[in-house]
Amino acid sequence: MSPPMHEVHRELTAWLAPLGVEVRVDAAGNLRAVYAAEKRETSRLLIGSHLDTVPNAGAFDGILGVVIAVALLKGFAGKRLPYAIEIVGFSEEEGVRFGIPFIGSRALVGRFDGNLLDARDASGVSVRQAIQNFELNPAQMGQACLHEDVFAYVEFHIEQGPVLEKRGLPLAAVDAIAGQSRLEFTFAGRANHAGTTPMDLRFDAVAGAAEWISAVEREAKAVPGLVATVGSVRATPGATNVIAAEASLSLDVRHREDNVRTAAVNHLTLKAEEIAQRRGLSVRSRALMNQAAVAMDPFVCDQIKAAICKIGCEPHCMVSGAGHDAMILAEKVPAGMIFLRTPGGISHDPAEAVAVEDVVKAIECGQHLLDQFAASETRTRRA
Amino acid sequence: MSPPMHEVHRELTAWLAPLGVEVRVDAAGNLRAVYAAEKRETSRLLIGSHLDTVPNAGAFDGILGVVIAVALLKGFAGKRLPYAIEIVGFSEEEGVRFGIPFIGSRALVGRFDGNLLDARDASGVSVRQAIQNFELNPAQMGQACLHEDVFAYVEFHIEQGPVLEKRGLPLAAVDAIAGQSRLEFTFAGRANHAGTTPMDLRFDAVAGAAEWISAVEREAKAVPGLVATVGSVRATPGATNVIAAEASLSLDVRHREDNVRTAAVNHLTLKAEEIAQRRGLSVRSRALMNQAAVAMDPFVCDQIKAAICKIGCEPHCMVSGAGHDAMILAEKVPAGMIFLRTPGGISHDPAEAVAVEDVVKAIECGQHLLDQFAASETRTRRA
Repeated sequence: MSPPMHEVHRELTAWLAPLGVEVRVDAAGNLRAVYAAEKRETSRLLIGSHLDTVPNAGAFDGILGVVIAVALLKGFAGKRLPYAIEIVGFSEEEGVRFGIPFIGSRALVGRFDGNLLDARDASGVSVRQAIQNFELNPAQMGQACLHEDVFAYVEFHIEQGPVLEKRGLPLAAVDAIAGQSRLEFTFAGRANHAGTTPMDLRFDAVAGAAEWISAVEREAKAVPGLVATVGSVRATPGATNVIAAEASLSLDVRHREDNVRTAAVNHLTLKAEEIAQRRGLSVRSRALMNQAAVAMDPFVCDQIKAAICKIGCEPHCMVSGAGHDAMILAEKVPAGMIFLRTPGGISHDPAEAVAVEDVVKAIECGQHLLDQFAASETRTRRA
Repeated sequence: MSPPMHEVHRELTAWLAPLGVEVRVDAAGNLRAVYAAEKRETSRLLIGSHLDTVPNAGAFDGILGVVIAVALLKGFAGKRLPYAIEIVGFSEEEGVRFGIPFIGSRALVGRFDGNLLDARDASGVSVRQAIQNFELNPAQMGQACLHEDVFAYVEFHIEQGPVLEKRGLPLAAVDAIAGQSRLEFTFAGRANHAGTTPMDLRFDAVAGAAEWISAVEREAKAVPGLVATVGSVRATPGATNVIAAEASLSLDVRHREDNVRTAAVNHLTLKAEEIAQRRGLSVRSRALMNQAAVAMDPFVCDQIKAAICKIGCEPHCMVSGAGHDAMILAEKVPAGMIFLRTPGGISHDPAEAVAVEDVVKAIECGQHLLDQFAASETRTRRA
């Protein structure tokens, strides 16, 4: 909801209006563009992704999913379907400004509460104020909510990882978004002179932490589908000639199955305690985030796989290690995601890329998917 | 050479003058206090340590060695020896202000050159200016140099390590000051999303660094007398949900034998390269310091051991893992050190301590040592 987002909305509106699409911006700052069905009072498919990104980002994370949706409507050349299509360009998925991700999608599932409105950015501007500054009315937040007519939500998004490139595949269906635990571990020993303290009289927090980092890597490699990362390490006092008194480390653990993730966190916590005890150190840990895995809807996922087959590709199915708006939408509507291959797995970086051929395949896949939905009885029953 | 050092000099002068000692401050800011011999034109023993310390320090590092020297003179009650005793209270041993240690002792061995005078502190004040601000004349630096009449230098100093406490001994003779290598190692991999990058497609700089830290510890434990420390670790970008692209680590390696230290540094450099290669990382290292070991004079060391025996203690002999003014003085004169037990090995900390009984033993040891020197023919020959 910074001023440049107005330009994004204007640009998208300029693309959409000629296609016979009604465009509005809801109170959470989401672009909502409805392509009506052939008849009134029918069901609705949501296709969306986010319009915001991170500082120093690439050009495709989020926005590509909205552009693909526009391309799909454009492909109809005016033809109407037996259901309406609503394109959603989500506001504030990344959580950069207020430290809270998925603000836009929360509004669609009715989770945009007073606490969220009171959250403030680094300059002290609240979400409420930011909405008003963007010439929207936070009192109208209720109108952003999904209605009962939505039968599915589909999100095209770059994978932001190396799996599809490694497998030589352009697309994949996402069947789950991994659950995530974030913790901070601090090993504490005793600061001492690096020259005068013999090896056997040390209580070296960095040496203990290093042993544990290796254990984290070993555990993640041993458990299929588990990823575990120590991305941040800080030694105190952190001087060349002083044995570290403390070493603080971050731990990020993800898996599609919550019990596997929880077991890994427990195992690594015990491992840290075992290492600390053996070395005369202490260790404390603090949970910062525990987010359950979210399954994508099996019907939507099957339809996506069938559409991928129709364009002659292997219908690979994978878990998303990152969170997406689809994770929030899944609370209320059957949700599915289509990943596009990401060269080098590079994202959140100006080098982020996507192959034109892969985008073409994604659009073709989407066309089949929309046709399948048109023919599907399940769609009618769900709506 | 900050204003409080004037107070230290005033206080020490007030103690020394009544003992018949001539006190001056040389151009490097060292307190120089000469207790004349029974005859003129004779040899001279230097007893000294440093008067400066680090921020948030303890009360004994450095200054205790000067106080013990004053106590020894006081013990003579006016009696003169066949040699003169010069107490030196060294200026700027720690290197806190200008980032350069041993400034005071360099002046005594004639290594106080123009580069050193031009070095600046954090506020941009040069050593030259600091000397002038302290009301001294840098042009008179030559007068700080040792003369040919010095037959030995002896330094009392707290051990600043846990060895004597562990052995249950109050004192030790130091027979060498360990050589020291300081390096910086940087492992470089590829930043990637902690959620979307499977374990087998990662190039995790922190994981590689952790493996190497464990190798450093293993190597040091395997080689007798070797100490090796990784005191500083920094991951970049250092975010919980990002696989680290870089990990920078400090390495501090010390041993009494230079070839053992050099072999360890080479081994650990190769080990880093082996780890990096196996993991698809790169590693670069940069040497920051390479300081050869310095042997203490065998005659002085033997005399110290004999004096320790005379007070009924085991004449333990050890290497100093830390640098001391004695290391610099050894370039020009036979030098020796006497370590005092340091409770908990704690130093450079307000909790730094020393037992009164151990100080008493150090003074008794010093009295025997001075008597031995008085009787020694070697002393006469050296002078």
